[in-house]
Amino acid sequence: MSRVVMKFGGTSVADLDRIANAAKKVEQEVANGHEVVVIVSAMSGKTNELVGWVRETSDMHDRAEYDAIVSSGENITAGLLAQRLKEMGISARSWQGWQVPVQTTGAHEAARIEGIPSDNLDASFASGHKVAVVAGFQGIGPDGRITTLGRGGSDTTAVAFAAALDAVRCDIYTDVDGIYTTDPRIVSTARKIRKISYEEMLELASLGAKVLQTRSVELAMRYKVPLRVLSSFEDDISETAGTLVCDEEDTMESKVVHGIAYSKDEAKVTLVSVADRPGIAAAIFGPLADAGVNVDMIVQNISEDGRTDMTFSCPVDQVPHALKAMDEAKMDLNFEKIVTDTEVAKVSMVGVGMRSHAGVAAKMFKILANEGVNIQVITTSEIKVSVLVDRKYMELAVRALHDAFELETAA
Amino acid sequence: MSRVVMKFGGTSVADLDRIANAAKKVEQEVANGHEVVVIVSAMSGKTNELVGWVRETSDMHDRAEYDAIVSSGENITAGLLAQRLKEMGISARSWQGWQVPVQTTGAHEAARIEGIPSDNLDASFASGHKVAVVAGFQGIGPDGRITTLGRGGSDTTAVAFAAALDAVRCDIYTDVDGIYTTDPRIVSTARKIRKISYEEMLELASLGAKVLQTRSVELAMRYKVPLRVLSSFEDDISETAGTLVCDEEDTMESKVVHGIAYSKDEAKVTLVSVADRPGIAAAIFGPLADAGVNVDMIVQNISEDGRTDMTFSCPVDQVPHALKAMDEAKMDLNFEKIVTDTEVAKVSMVGVGMRSHAGVAAKMFKILANEGVNIQVITTSEIKVSVLVDRKYMELAVRALHDAFELETAA
Repeated sequence: MSRVVMKFGGTSVADLDRIANAAKKVEQEVANGHEVVVIVSAMSGKTNELVGWVRETSDMHDRAEYDAIVSSGENITAGLLAQRLKEMGISARSWQGWQVPVQTTGAHEAARIEGIPSDNLDASFASGHKVAVVAGFQGIGPDGRITTLGRGGSDTTAVAFAAALDAVRCDIYTDVDGIYTTDPRIVSTARKIRKISYEEMLELASLGAKVLQTRSVELAMRYKVPLRVLSSFEDDISETAGTLVCDEEDTMESKVVHGIAYSKDEAKVTLVSVADRPGIAAAIFGPLADAGVNVDMIVQNISEDGRTDMTFSCPVDQVPHALKAMDEAKMDLNFEKIVTDTEVAKVSMVGVGMRSHAGVAAKMFKILANEGVNIQVITTSEIKVSVLVDRKYMELAVRALHDAFELETAA
Repeated sequence: MSRVVMKFGGTSVADLDRIANAAKKVEQEVANGHEVVVIVSAMSGKTNELVGWVRETSDMHDRAEYDAIVSSGENITAGLLAQRLKEMGISARSWQGWQVPVQTTGAHEAARIEGIPSDNLDASFASGHKVAVVAGFQGIGPDGRITTLGRGGSDTTAVAFAAALDAVRCDIYTDVDGIYTTDPRIVSTARKIRKISYEEMLELASLGAKVLQTRSVELAMRYKVPLRVLSSFEDDISETAGTLVCDEEDTMESKVVHGIAYSKDEAKVTLVSVADRPGIAAAIFGPLADAGVNVDMIVQNISEDGRTDMTFSCPVDQVPHALKAMDEAKMDLNFEKIVTDTEVAKVSMVGVGMRSHAGVAAKMFKILANEGVNIQVITTSEIKVSVLVDRKYMELAVRALHDAFELETAA
């Protein structure tokens, strides 16, 4: 019998009404003839309540106790949903991570799944259960203690179960109905993408389209699990609903550019007149990494008289850490001054078609130039072009690119 | 190294301040040189929230899911207390029932503890941990699912751990500072009892002094675990604090009567003129048991012309069930009418000394007669005399007996 995995996030199980709503979707998949594994998050707000208590109890909280406490949020949802399903006459039971077991590393708060032996769930299905409701985000470490997977871990749990149980599909139910060509709040003609490749989704996920957790997409790509994003607030859960994230060869659209992402809260930091010597990059970015600064784009100017300007971007709230780290390294780096611009934004175009189509970046630059948008920094990958622009031009840039590349129409 | 078990109920861990307060008491026992097992309940109100969700989700809730959901309340407290202890520099960790494991029967919501292998906790203490904080009220059934022990189960958990881990003492921290000769709200001279025997405590517990769960006292008696009741809101936790429940030979006081208990919400039901034939008692009390009526006292009048009156007492809120059951059995019982009195109360005197002292009951009846209190029903056991009286005389009766038997002074 075919199996599907369904995952419901915090807002999709926020209260008892929404849990009942999720149960109806599970009922449909059972009616479709599937054995269903449901992965649930904590009711939204619940995790924050628990984390608040942990923080209040201790300044330097114990990570193992944090996991033992916080994981109970998912356990509660799993029990409630299983009970709801039984009330509807569907043979279901809840599973906590250790019961499956979801075997993880011992890294509390940031554990990685190492294995999910399917024996217990196989036996449960064989005995007649139609649904296994599993608490997401958690597992059991080598020492028998409870672990959690870190932020967004329930998506990863869902994909791991789909891989371990050989599911035909992993459906992620969330509060949006799919992946769009860009943010519909900015571009009214933004179109829902029917199918997108894992690679493109990874670029979009890390670029600010926060629908799917990056690790879950990586895992889906590795195990070739078809991953679908769809709304828990709409009735349609048929094959054509939502957005399917799958192998490149299974995507139908032939658009060169598939989506346009943006990230608002970026900052640009320039070290003016740094000695251009071997090892200078390591001398700059080593201390930044140590200070926990997530450096994104990096540009090094042409060298003049043995000195150069070094520019990088990072999230705007990390600028103080970056400046402190650079200040402490000033003796070594010997730069003239630091110039900071906290009013920038990043706009990125993503599409696997770029691999085979030359001139995509050039077209992008021309479109932005026509709109009078100055490009401050550029980075590219095989399937992506990102530019840093003045934040006030961000929406204009997204709209102009969406129009010019005709993303409002399917290929 | 000697071990003690400490148990904190819901009001003693109601919020983070109280959890911090409990941690200080644990710290003292560690400083006293003990290895400490702490059993915790859910933060008060937490269990009711979870039970509320269960009830709302389903009319006929699934008992296994109920246990999986509700047990998370204790897990949260255990994690928070362990973390608090670590913050104070005390080597502690939390344990959920299945991790110990607390092996129980599979009877969800009403499981009984079958065994607590001490290997895991022994190893934890041997590795240097000073405190094991265990989630009370829960265990793991033969099928690997989570079970709960039913109301008051955390007391039972505590005693079972004390027995399994060979603890020198099991301290139950609660919101009263011990067992009193009677309710201090009724008799201002009521005195805290220093030591009381298991048997007496059992009579008092079942008579309405709701400090300790009956099952926990039975278990303590069986395994000879010294059980102490003391306040979590007072600083004194020395050997003389609270009330110690222990073997009869270890109790020092020589009072004949040890305590006076009462129960307000009683009702008296009389079947007038029942045929006095063999099997009539079974014909009456069988249907009552089937209807879930907890019959307490039973009196059968002298028979006259082959007919008799049968009187029994039960909690006042069960009277409708009792009347319905009797009405349905009327054809068989052939009684003349039913007379109900819902304005009665039970007053009981308890003391192991009654075994060797004759005339205690007679003295009790005389005292009540002197006060003009009419006795409606009498029952006795080896160590107890209970009477049913008009509810309006209840407090008068308790005070008169407390004075006459001089319970305000220690022996």
